Order: sequence, then structure tokens, then C-alpha cells
Amino acid sequence: MAEAAKFFEETAEPANFNENKTQIERFIAKHNEGCTPVVLITSGGTTVPLEGNTVRFIDNFSIGTRGSASAEYFWTRHDVLFLHRHRSLQPYTRHLPQSQLLDILEVKNDDEGQKLCVKNEKTAKLLDIIHKYQSVQKEGRLLMVEFTSLVDYLHLLRASSLIMSSLGKNAFLYLAAAVSDFYIPKNKMPQHKIQSSNGPLQLSLELVPKMLEALVKNWVSSAYVVSFKLETDPNLLIVKAQQSLEKYEHQLVIGNILDTRKFEVVFVTNSETDWIKLEENDLQNGIEIESKIVKSLVERHRQFCCE
Amino acid sequence: MAEAAKFFEETAEPANFNENKTQIERFIAKHNEGCTPVVLITSGGTTVPLEGNTVRFIDNFSIGTRGSASAEYFWTRHDVLFLHRHRSLQPYTRHLPQSQLLDILEVKNDDEGQKLCVKNEKTAKLLDIIHKYQSVQKEGRLLMVEFTSLVDYLHLLRASSLIMSSLGKNAFLYLAAAVSDFYIPKNKMPQHKIQSSNGPLQLSLELVPKMLEALVKNWVSSAYVVSFKLETDPNLLIVKAQQSLEKYEHQLVIGNILDTRKFEVVFVTNSETDWIKLEENDLQNGIEIESKIVKSLVERHRQFCCE
Repeated sequence: MAEAAKFFEETAEPANFNENKTQIERFIAKHNEGCTPVVLITSGGTTVPLEGNTVRFIDNFSIGTRGSASAEYFWTRHDVLFLHRHRSLQPYTRHLPQSQLLDILEVKNDDEGQKLCVKNEKTAKLLDIIHKYQSVQKEGRLLMVEFTSLVDYLHLLRASSLIMSSLGKNAFLYLAAAVSDFYIPKNKMPQHKIQSSNGPLQLSLELVPKMLEALVKNWVSSAYVVSFKLETDPNLLIVKAQQSLEKYEHQLVIGNILDTRKFEVVFVTNSETDWIKLEENDLQNGIEIESKIVKSLVERHRQFCCE
Repeated sequence: MAEAAKFFEETAEPANFNENKTQIERFIAKHNEGCTPVVLITSGGTTVPLEGNTVRFIDNFSIGTRGSASAEYFWTRHDVLFLHRHRSLQPYTRHLPQSQLLDILEVKNDDEGQKLCVKNEKTAKLLDIIHKYQSVQKEGRLLMVEFTSLVDYLHLLRASSLIMSSLGKNAFLYLAAAVSDFYIPKNKMPQHKIQSSNGPLQLSLELVPKMLEALVKNWVSSAYVVSFKLETDPNLLIVKAQQSLEKYEHQLVIGNILDTRKFEVVFVTNSETDWIKLEENDLQNGIEIESKIVKSLVERHRQFCCE
């Protein structure tokens, strides 16, 4: 945990950090006297810059599907603090692919002139989405905070966790963001764009301190904490998830394989290994695996709060 | 150029490559007997995978602003083949940030039931955009093709260039994509996700062969070719642009600095160094620098075709 503390000392807070912190404090303060639980969902990938004036960075596959879909299902019971990568998918708007936006609108003429309306065949689905979106917005049940780099993400994760500790067991952390394991410290990266005229490129990346230990033990110690483990090799998945659980002593690890993550995941706890899968008829009915994941988690969190 | 040929031999064609090629051939064939020039715009950044089953990759800052904005201005005279990064900005839809989408719609009731329409205050601007978008679509003046990785991009660039060579001087290549200079060949990368339990990470990246030479001399030798040079160090910009022009013998390099690229660029040709800048009143009037860049290029291409 000394490494985690050193990391925060040596890295700069993100732009707008204090404004974001104030917003998070206000959002959580509203819940301190109520009984609505709050879930912090982290979503999307983090970037690791290779240069001070950053042209290039290391990134990962995540566009925020898991986190943004999960948020929609958590609202049955939880309010949501959504800490997400800039330009990644967001709850509700994720159903509208940007490239098709102009194709769903049509020009209508009425007494007041020209109007732009959603085409009839798309209206029912979008009305449903917009009603849910507006109700969540109106009731103040969502706060969205953005990050881009690994460093920004970790500063915001620590701040959010510390603030949420006031919620006790009503705090739920759902750590779905795909966080880099490696980075280049600022004092070891070149200031300007790396030149290809210098020939092939050797990069030395250091390990990012494991923050989960500090999070579970110090930042938000009463919370229900779920982390994710993504692998490409199925042989490693469960053993890696178990190791993580033993090391950090949190409640649950959700394991998933890159190629099958939209159809099956495995819940690993101290006492069980439980696969959650989409069946053939789920797929036909457009069921998302996040609905099953979150349904189970909401019940687990309810039980945790009663213990 | 032997290195370029070797690169294509050793890398796989992207998914849907033949379908994309057929689409491009059809789009270009329509122009072979006409006199409408065609511009190939490349836009957005390329990814460089670090693993075979790719969890991590190297990427860059570009989200396709330059390319997508430029396309809109090229339509005054050129038809557009838009070769762009998956999920990067696209012409016209770029004006609708996805995160604000649900906020610009409102529910209206009429005789036929509930409708979803764009709010009044947003209608005029969006009507203008949608009219332009629909006319470009209807007249078949746009073909969009997507890429993600460096390898996909280069295969599609070569195919497009070879097909466009039938247009002679009416072919215009506007190479705005931010293409990686480094990559890891498939046979030198691990198959599975790199494990952080193995400690710090050393990466060895090789140089990507410079494709501009093959493009200018072999693939599409009669075309008007504009490349971009992006730097973070202003002291390097013009000398790097001049070196590129001398080496590849194409028509023009547009130089730009990361921090100021939305406000000023420099045109470097064999005979001149010409800055294009947004003035104070341009900024106040919402003028985009791409309108000035493309206006000048359209005139330069017209003159080039008359020579």
C-alpha cells in the first residue's frame, strides 16, 4: 500500500479534479440519511501516455459496454455514480449508434414550419429509452464523471471511494473499467513526439501499483466490492480470479474471457464458482447478460447489508 | 519499396476486405467517364495490437476531427471516399455529440400518438445538416469504409489507391489519418494477454515501412497527393515537412502542431511555405480551419488537373 501512496504523491490530479470531487460529495451527501444504496460503476478503458505532449498512448479494447449496460439494470434499486472513459458508451445513449443518428430522423411539415422527428418505426423503442433516461435525470439518480488516462482514473477512483465510505454497507463498487497494469512514469517519458527517424522503439513500462488492496482496506472498508478479471486464456481465468479474491479480500470477482464476455461470465467468491450464461432463448429475446449479472448482484448486496 | 511489398505479404487482409474492395471499385467506376474529381480522405488513428488475442494496443490522439470536417467542405467539388477509423467522427454526424443526443429530443403528442422531435431551439441547425447529409447520400457522392488497426488501414489504403489510379489526375488523396510509425509483427507478439504477474513490461516495436513512396510512385502515380505531418515541437515542423516532400515527391505536406492544429497549419510545397490561420473574427463566427484548408486545396487540384 506504500506503493499506492507513492503513486498518488508522484502523479498530478486531473483537470477539474476539485469540481468533480465537489459534485461527487454533493451526490453522496444526498444519500447519507436515506436508505437508497449507491453503486460506483467504473467503465471503459484507461490510456497510458507514451509522451509528455501526448501523441501516442497505450489503450485497451473496452468501449464501456459492460458498465453502461449494467447501469441501466442497477437503477431498479441503486443510484449510480458512473465514472467512465471520455467518449465511451453511456447508459441509454448507447442504444443510439452515432453513425445512424441522422438516418433515424425525418423532416415533417406542420403549421409552425419544419420539424425534425424520429421516424415512426424507431419511435416506440426510443420513447421507452427516453422516458427511463428522463426519469433517472429528473430524480437525480445519476452522476456521470469522465476520465481519460490511467492517472486521472485512479485519482477519481480514490476520491470517489473515500467519499462513499460515509455510506457504510450501502456503498457498492462495481469496478468494470479495464485499467492498465503498466505505465510510464512522467519523469521517464520523452516530452515531445517520439521520432521514427531514430529507428525501432524500445518501451519500458512499470507496474501500476495494485490499488484494490488500499481501496478494500483503507478507502471504503465497509463497502460491497466487485472487481472484474478479463483473460484471453480460459485456463487462467478461475485461478486468477481466486488469487485476486485471496489477496484483496473483497466480496466477488467476475471472471470473463475476451471472446465470450457478452455471453458468459463466472462469479467467483470464497465459497462458490457460479457461471452465468445467456441461453439460446435469451439471445433470441435480446436479453443482455448484464441484466442477469446485476439482478444477482442486487440480491447479493441486499443480503450483505442485512448481515 | 521492397519493405512495403514484404509488409503486405506478411500481414493478413482485414475482415470484409473483398466486400470493401468491390464497393470501392463500384464507387470509382461511376466516376471513370465523368469529370467529377474524387478525394480519398483518410481519417482517425490506427491501432497497433500488443497481443494476438488483443486486449491492449497502441493508439493515438486522433478522433477524426480534421478528416470528417474536411469531407463536408470537399463536397463543393469532389465526391468523397471516406476511409475512417471505427467509432471516429464522421461528416455531418460529428455535429451531434452522442452524449447530448437524448437531451435534444422532446416528446410531442399529436393525433397519431406520441412523437419524438428535436427541440425547437436545435431544429434550424440540424435541419441544415440533415439536408446536406441527405443530398450527399441521395446523389451517391459518399462512400464510407472503416478500419481499426494499422494493418487493416494499410491494406485498404493500397487497394483504394490502386483502384483510384484509373481516375488519373482527377484522383485526390488527402491523407489525414494519424498512422502509427511503429508496430509489432504478428510472429513477435504473444498470443494471450500479457500478465502483470510477470513484472514490468519491455516492448520492442519495429518501424512501419514508409508507404508514401510506393503510393506516389506505383499505386496511384497521376494523383494529387497531400500528406500531413504532426509534431509537438515547433522547431521540427517545417524541416520535417520539407524532408517528407523531398523524399516522396508528392504535391503538398500540411504541417501542424498538436496544440494549435485547430487554429493554424502550414502548407509546404516545393516552392512555398504558406501559413493558414484562423483570425479572431473567424473564431467569433465559428469558421473551421478545414474550410480554409479545403478551399485552397480544391483550387490547387483544379490547377493541377489543367497542367
